[in-house]
Amino acid sequence: MSEQIPDFEAGTGGLLPAIAQDAQSGQVLMMAWMNREALDETLSSGYAVYYSRSRGRLWRKGEESGHRQKIVDVRVDCDADAILLRVEQVGAACHEGYVSCFFRQLQNDGSTDTILKRLVDPKSVYK
Amino acid sequence: MSEQIPDFEAGTGGLLPAIAQDAQSGQVLMMAWMNREALDETLSSGYAVYYSRSRGRLWRKGEESGHRQKIVDVRVDCDADAILLRVEQVGAACHEGYVSCFFRQLQNDGSTDTILKRLVDPKSVYK
Repeated sequence: MSEQIPDFEAGTGGLLPAIAQDAQSGQVLMMAWMNREALDETLSSGYAVYYSRSRGRLWRKGEESGHRQKIVDVRVDCDADAILLRVEQVGAACHEGYVSCFFRQLQNDGSTDTILKRLVDPKSVYK
Repeated sequence: MSEQIPDFEAGTGGLLPAIAQDAQSGQVLMMAWMNREALDETLSSGYAVYYSRSRGRLWRKGEESGHRQKIVDVRVDCDADAILLRVEQVGAACHEGYVSCFFRQLQNDGSTDTILKRLVDPKSVYK
């Protein structure tokens, strides 16, 4: 192959956006970032691995919480600069205890409504 | 409100990733970018407006193809740095004629399989 898919060089600092979607329900769970190494480990381990910009290192999703994401399949978009992970989510995807990080609905006036219920108490998961 | 949600200052160059999802089927359609102006016009017009990095201007999705995205609702993630648009998609979201831009499945050996059928011939849509 001459063309690398996905094309990490197209991303800022070698990072591409990665969307995690529950393969069963279709719910969009979260958006995070991947570099080549994170994707390689995701494919070889069968569990979602991201690159944490705040920690500056690979982030094996669920390494602390146990809320891992088992890979069902990985998709790449037309421009090869965005990644979609279809996963089986263990527990809550969101560190705030919601099944999805997208638990707030934005209103036209700029306010937000919380539209999901907390699945777990974050204090019981993170120390 | 003291806190701006979403927080465009958290994005590179004032841009945040925006995911479009078909509100009916749950299919993830595409990933694009938004600045504050794009989001404001999305909310006021009721149709998805992105910021095109390649064109360096607002991109009213479907302005050429007619394949607009009617907003059902807009969601914001826990860190307020990613946006999820739940939409009614007219026609094909992808400029290559697929309903979703994520029409390729990535295999462990780095190759890809096209797993969706073309909905429309791009040549019939774009001149």
